[in-house]
Amino acid sequence: MSVTAAQGFTAAGIAAGIKQNGNPDLALVVNTGPRHAAAGVFTSNRVKAAPVLWSEQVLKGGAVTAVVLNSGGANACTGPQGFQDTHATAEKAAELLGHSAGEIAVASTGLIGTLLPMDKLLPGLDTAAAQLDTDGGEKAAIAIKTTDTVHKTAVHRGDGWTVGGMAKGAGMLAPGLATMLVVLTTDADLDSATLDRALRDATRTTFDRVDSDGCMSTNDTVLLLASGSSGTTPGYEDFAAGVRTVCDDLARMLIGDAEGASKDIRIEVIGAATEADAVEVGRSIARNNLLKCAIHGEDPNWGRVLSAIGTTGAAFDPDRLNVAINGVWVCKNGSFGEDRDLVDMRYREVGITADLSAGSESAVIWTNDLTADYVHENSAYSS
Amino acid sequence: MSVTAAQGFTAAGIAAGIKQNGNPDLALVVNTGPRHAAAGVFTSNRVKAAPVLWSEQVLKGGAVTAVVLNSGGANACTGPQGFQDTHATAEKAAELLGHSAGEIAVASTGLIGTLLPMDKLLPGLDTAAAQLDTDGGEKAAIAIKTTDTVHKTAVHRGDGWTVGGMAKGAGMLAPGLATMLVVLTTDADLDSATLDRALRDATRTTFDRVDSDGCMSTNDTVLLLASGSSGTTPGYEDFAAGVRTVCDDLARMLIGDAEGASKDIRIEVIGAATEADAVEVGRSIARNNLLKCAIHGEDPNWGRVLSAIGTTGAAFDPDRLNVAINGVWVCKNGSFGEDRDLVDMRYREVGITADLSAGSESAVIWTNDLTADYVHENSAYSS
Repeated sequence: MSVTAAQGFTAAGIAAGIKQNGNPDLALVVNTGPRHAAAGVFTSNRVKAAPVLWSEQVLKGGAVTAVVLNSGGANACTGPQGFQDTHATAEKAAELLGHSAGEIAVASTGLIGTLLPMDKLLPGLDTAAAQLDTDGGEKAAIAIKTTDTVHKTAVHRGDGWTVGGMAKGAGMLAPGLATMLVVLTTDADLDSATLDRALRDATRTTFDRVDSDGCMSTNDTVLLLASGSSGTTPGYEDFAAGVRTVCDDLARMLIGDAEGASKDIRIEVIGAATEADAVEVGRSIARNNLLKCAIHGEDPNWGRVLSAIGTTGAAFDPDRLNVAINGVWVCKNGSFGEDRDLVDMRYREVGITADLSAGSESAVIWTNDLTADYVHENSAYSS
Repeated sequence: MSVTAAQGFTAAGIAAGIKQNGNPDLALVVNTGPRHAAAGVFTSNRVKAAPVLWSEQVLKGGAVTAVVLNSGGANACTGPQGFQDTHATAEKAAELLGHSAGEIAVASTGLIGTLLPMDKLLPGLDTAAAQLDTDGGEKAAIAIKTTDTVHKTAVHRGDGWTVGGMAKGAGMLAPGLATMLVVLTTDADLDSATLDRALRDATRTTFDRVDSDGCMSTNDTVLLLASGSSGTTPGYEDFAAGVRTVCDDLARMLIGDAEGASKDIRIEVIGAATEADAVEVGRSIARNNLLKCAIHGEDPNWGRVLSAIGTTGAAFDPDRLNVAINGVWVCKNGSFGEDRDLVDMRYREVGITADLSAGSESAVIWTNDLTADYVHENSAYSS
């Protein structure tokens, strides 16, 4: 499944020795055509990793024949040498595959601020190229894991066409944009402009609304590659819905595997004057550490939700705010409502509904609780 | 010391039974004159507690004769009944002191969303009024503690005048404004307009730049009361510097006692094009959970600093960013610099310097690390 669920793609995932523990760390995804149309969205962090700077240029051409992805190092904040290393990676893949380096995207993930061991990575590419297979998607998905406990893949079957995808990401999940590495593939026969539109439509309401810990990565990359090998050109709405389904599935998996999390929190803001207001309020709630701790403690502390709403510029009257936690309206008209003891918080998924009573727009943001395990995992990340 | 260090003030702190554990929970601070000039700054959270709504109105008159402060309940998000309770508190204090309720400020702190036990609070005011004393400042400071492990007081002696103060706050420390309760007193002979100017000048660079956990309270209140009883009218700059010193001391104590913290982190942003840029970048660094976890683990993970800077709109070139941790320039020109193993992080205070290389403005923001103790303390806060 994964990126090889669609026809016209091969993939491989191997252990090149970039990670010191010997786990798989290098993935290669190749579009065997006949088309090589592609679209991409990247982090909006102004500090961008070398592979992001490279791949952004590649995507301007609208064609990608292969993607090289490595875990075990982000190649971010590595200066001119870091960029040269990304370039050398693309050149090596181009040579192995007989394509131009200008159509090879590169993505990296791992620790910021250290150079990649190119003496491991480049020979690893030989191995990966030799193992390319139409069944290799699963191995590729495994090779891009960092602190992920599971690899993440999704597939959507359309009428004569398929979208498949893989993702990695378990921390540093925040908006604008993806905060993860994602490769989506399709055998639909579409041009890069259509792919770009469908990808942006999908990420705007999926990856862009996942906000696990408010931190934005330097390496976020989401690519959509189309081989055209099904010979089918789906209608735009059908195709966009398929891409959105795959993105939604992968985004949900990212939240479900976020570092140290014990709760997945679905924040739905309703009654907003505008969608932008709903998103702003949802993000503010999602980033409130005190609320995230309270949810971890299974404490329906709705006062934290109101405090978070109050820091936004959204249209609302404090005396008309309503908040439900797992369906119990614990806050009505800005004050206490139904009995908070009625709220059952035993399960992993927690639903918070914030009603601004200011209009009819809405948005959903996903986040996680804040736990001692998150602290432990990120206290010792680089050591 | 505390609020009774200046002449013309009495105070008391008692256990009224608002807190179920029997700890002190009610403070009264009285300005015995001859002047009753006052200024105040309040939370910029749009969800404001009843006592904030009340006291904002009181301060518009520029005169405060007494402040009633309670811990054990925030009286926030409590609807019309909550506001009536604040009003009744001011009326009761006015009756006891023979003043108008329109000159009685009220401040509350504790859990959001529950009504105060007025059957305990109002009789408590009788007790507090009977115990008012020119030495009562210490007891008042103790009575406003919530999760504070120590009470917080500070004093500055000018030439013939004094500024004293007390503060409570150990969590929910974030900008815009104070996220705490603070009462400052002075025997200087000044009008409310001068007090207001000095207070805003002081809070802008002290309480406003403390950002322990990025969460903004519904109850933040900082009051400055002047009795004029010294008969001295200091020059503005002298007086403003004195107020700033007391605010700075109290702000530093808040950071030093933040919930669960094991590190106090001083973030200095230099080389900024504007002070606003420096503050924006400082706050972004201060709110990065991944960095805060890394500092807890004594890990000089400067990549987290660059990631945080990259999310701001400040003027900078990613290739000209420099970062020092405890004096070691671990990041130079946006890439790795001096050996990170040289960074000694054993002590409680950690200094991060971020040089944007874009100008000559600077700002200092204080924050704390993120710890498992913070999570534990806030997982069980309301239960």
